[in-house]
Amino acid sequence: MGKGAGMIAPNMATLLAFFTTDVDVEPGLLQRALQEAVGESLNRITVDGDTSTNDMAVILASGCAEAPPIRTEGAAYDAFRGALTAAARSLAEQIVRDGEGATRLAEVRVEGARTAAEADRIARTIAESPLVKTALHGGDPNWGRILAAVGRSGIPVDIERVDIHLGPVWVAEGGRARAYDEGLAHRAVTEDPVRIRVDLHAGTASGWIWTCDLTRAYVDINAHYRS
Amino acid sequence: MGKGAGMIAPNMATLLAFFTTDVDVEPGLLQRALQEAVGESLNRITVDGDTSTNDMAVILASGCAEAPPIRTEGAAYDAFRGALTAAARSLAEQIVRDGEGATRLAEVRVEGARTAAEADRIARTIAESPLVKTALHGGDPNWGRILAAVGRSGIPVDIERVDIHLGPVWVAEGGRARAYDEGLAHRAVTEDPVRIRVDLHAGTASGWIWTCDLTRAYVDINAHYRS
Repeated sequence: MGKGAGMIAPNMATLLAFFTTDVDVEPGLLQRALQEAVGESLNRITVDGDTSTNDMAVILASGCAEAPPIRTEGAAYDAFRGALTAAARSLAEQIVRDGEGATRLAEVRVEGARTAAEADRIARTIAESPLVKTALHGGDPNWGRILAAVGRSGIPVDIERVDIHLGPVWVAEGGRARAYDEGLAHRAVTEDPVRIRVDLHAGTASGWIWTCDLTRAYVDINAHYRS
Repeated sequence: MGKGAGMIAPNMATLLAFFTTDVDVEPGLLQRALQEAVGESLNRITVDGDTSTNDMAVILASGCAEAPPIRTEGAAYDAFRGALTAAARSLAEQIVRDGEGATRLAEVRVEGARTAAEADRIARTIAESPLVKTALHGGDPNWGRILAAVGRSGIPVDIERVDIHLGPVWVAEGGRARAYDEGLAHRAVTEDPVRIRVDLHAGTASGWIWTCDLTRAYVDINAHYRS
């Protein structure tokens, strides 16, 4: 269960996520599985960059399942963790799709980074850029805005090695425009989800963030929600 | 002269600022005066957080003025630097007011910080928050969104010591609501400029940022500027 991506009462923002399982899992392993699942789901979504003051994810394990208890790492733990991560990802995707005014999901993937933290930071900068998010809304394959967000992320990047793909369309190579089909590129940014892929060619680490488009409805909801 | 706060050609964003003077100023002092003036003006504005790839400020000094040359620090240099800073501030204010879709200027001032850099970072986080900027647009004295931005700025802050003022209205004390007049608070956030003041009570440093509100027109301009 998850509740989020919007104010639900004046001056309180809440993202609350609850997972339950009947599997009997050793508490330390349960906590670790939750942290790994959340790291690959709820901690990779952003609607507007405005972190709630009350974000929380908890997991409750009743131990009532007939399956054998999980007390150590191994195949059973891996299967449990995989199922939990899949559930958390589904929840995270639904929360972004419910984002205020959102009409479309976008997956921003950064590859070829030196570290996963740097990849995440760049992906988040792209995903929170108002110019990128409005371009997504308008169906504008504006890779220049994506490249500009890479450049201002605070992570040192050799712009002349950066490739950008919008869905199946390779739009920029080495920081410059390729000869791509404008119609195909436009179609790529009107799909749902939109897939933005940036390759830095600086290493082997990668990261990703899910976001949504920025719309007039977002402004309306947040400018006038008390009236 | 300044040109900025909007895309002027596809995939190029430019903020260009040119200052000219007839005063004969020693080049090192001229550069220093420019850096100080820009630090108190152009480097303190944000429309959407999307830094241009081509921002630039230059100053040209012809040396044609009849005033004596400025070769050293002192009263003449101070007067020159003061005039330059005033010109740069005027330019910076005009650029924010010309921001895409902007209807109102806001001054975000953070006081009582441990360092000026921390004050600036917090002020910038508030000024770039989509929730704060839409509240400004709607005339909503939503100090909770301001406090939430302080909390997610990345700077350690004791929230229970934070005061927030909207214009003349003291709305939050020690991180909690005061008994303020809602009508006066609403009026304070429909003035132009809106004055947001946050006191952290953690030190003696301060900082400020100018920003504008976030409107439907911003979304329209940036979602559809190529069609």
